[in-house]
Amino acid sequence: MYRIGLDIGATKTKILLISPGGKIIRREKILTDSFGSPDPIIRRAADFIGKLIAEEGLRKRQILGVGCGCAGFMDTETGYIDISPNLKWFGVQFGKKFGKRLGMKIRMVNDVNAAAWGEFVYGAGKGKGLRHLVAVFPGSGIGGGIVCNGKLVEGATGTAGEVGHLIFRENGLLCDCGRRGCHEAYAGGMPMENRMRKLVRAGKAKLVKEMVKGDLGRINTRTIADAARRGDPDAKLVWKEAVASLCVLCANLVSVFNPEVLVLGGGVIEGNPVLLPTIRHYVKTHAVEYSGRAVQVVKSNLGGDAIALGAAAMIDAD
Amino acid sequence: MYRIGLDIGATKTKILLISPGGKIIRREKILTDSFGSPDPIIRRAADFIGKLIAEEGLRKRQILGVGCGCAGFMDTETGYIDISPNLKWFGVQFGKKFGKRLGMKIRMVNDVNAAAWGEFVYGAGKGKGLRHLVAVFPGSGIGGGIVCNGKLVEGATGTAGEVGHLIFRENGLLCDCGRRGCHEAYAGGMPMENRMRKLVRAGKAKLVKEMVKGDLGRINTRTIADAARRGDPDAKLVWKEAVASLCVLCANLVSVFNPEVLVLGGGVIEGNPVLLPTIRHYVKTHAVEYSGRAVQVVKSNLGGDAIALGAAAMIDAD
Repeated sequence: MYRIGLDIGATKTKILLISPGGKIIRREKILTDSFGSPDPIIRRAADFIGKLIAEEGLRKRQILGVGCGCAGFMDTETGYIDISPNLKWFGVQFGKKFGKRLGMKIRMVNDVNAAAWGEFVYGAGKGKGLRHLVAVFPGSGIGGGIVCNGKLVEGATGTAGEVGHLIFRENGLLCDCGRRGCHEAYAGGMPMENRMRKLVRAGKAKLVKEMVKGDLGRINTRTIADAARRGDPDAKLVWKEAVASLCVLCANLVSVFNPEVLVLGGGVIEGNPVLLPTIRHYVKTHAVEYSGRAVQVVKSNLGGDAIALGAAAMIDAD
Repeated sequence: MYRIGLDIGATKTKILLISPGGKIIRREKILTDSFGSPDPIIRRAADFIGKLIAEEGLRKRQILGVGCGCAGFMDTETGYIDISPNLKWFGVQFGKKFGKRLGMKIRMVNDVNAAAWGEFVYGAGKGKGLRHLVAVFPGSGIGGGIVCNGKLVEGATGTAGEVGHLIFRENGLLCDCGRRGCHEAYAGGMPMENRMRKLVRAGKAKLVKEMVKGDLGRINTRTIADAARRGDPDAKLVWKEAVASLCVLCANLVSVFNPEVLVLGGGVIEGNPVLLPTIRHYVKTHAVEYSGRAVQVVKSNLGGDAIALGAAAMIDAD
């Protein structure tokens, strides 16, 4: 059976058509453009998918279903979305409506959980006979996903794997979630950059200011890492705490899950090649001995396709 | 089918005979007395089990198998025990030998994982239709066990659930495992008591010394909690950090696993009734919102039978 995977982002929705053998046959993008209501994207995506299937000479009964990865909190069974901040959807019925319009089975998945499942089935875990995988994606925030005993761990309310909001330091930095000391507040790309900008505005981190020629919008995690290497004491503090946070987070996840593979991806990892070997070394030396020894720490290799691929692979994974 | 559960401790081995309906029919104890070699306990336990079955008028073919809970690192499939520090077993073949002698199926389980599975099947999770449960047992150390999607999480090398050795504070207190800052170093009963004793020996914590009339062996976690409440500044520090450690650990486990139930047990919890409501409140306010709201934080209700019951329930759980 063919399958379709969607990655519903705030501005664009990626649509993949996947062959029975797991090959991506079509990779398309449509505008999401549906702030506040899911109806426009349901219409547009359904029409587009209909066209796509026809173009490929397929029939509906050859399609197993549609997996939809999407940020936020949702009931993955009914497809009811409680909160999706990026899409500005609050309490909307997406899955049922979309399935009715399409006449196909829909499986909703949290986007980062989908990415972890994508890595397990099609990516870093492919063909390895794995049973346990942990994925950590430090991008603007820090997402994560977990596979135990060959099954995605979604938890009681679909909110398992929220690794960015594990507490790194009690009463630490304020996080966007409203709580303090989360890993995301230290090592999420956006919070890290905002922290740096604040320091520059306060007259500190002179080297960082010089590097971006006063344009604070240009500060990214790479600027911070570079300034730290070049000796700026404020950039050093921010970068050191970010690295420590990622190291501790990964070691702890390996100690508690004892996975065969730890996959790292996301913008902060991609933008700073030094992180992967640093984290790998820390995990090997600071996780519980047996688990640290057993785990392979690898880079995500699905890139931008992970969410749509993983969502598609969840259609029949329950 | 009847089943047999063993809890192989350093000095005594508990043996339970369990009815097809899950009732404990016989609860027996034999001496373990097998330091260095598993052979004496294999002989003694096998003979005892044979006698037990005969006394109950049962036949071997009415017994599904024998589940053995035991501290340490082991290959749960083959029953090979790599390290069991309490039993002083290093690289011993237990499972196969025991199974051969008994003529029954053997399932080895790490003791704390077994206790978590026992709670899931027979204890705090019984009859609730749960799928996800996390158990934390702060006793002399801190053990834990995890059930996701209705399956015990043992991990790639059987060392999942080592919650006591998650890092609470980077470069923090030295832990018995050789690493620094583990939760166990702060909130494990034995490390907490040793820390307090050290302070008393250094001439601090005068109230604690007075409370135990100078007999430092009498210091337990309750003494520390009492002295903290009565205003001893050193006891306050030790107790406050222990409570913080347990609170952060439990909130983090709830955030990452999103379980329906968090079970707390073990000597530190039993000896200090204030802990359960304190931890419950912290989890509700500091775990990821959806997960904190959804979880029930409850006390273990199997007590000393959890390990043997859980091991017995693992015989056919794979």
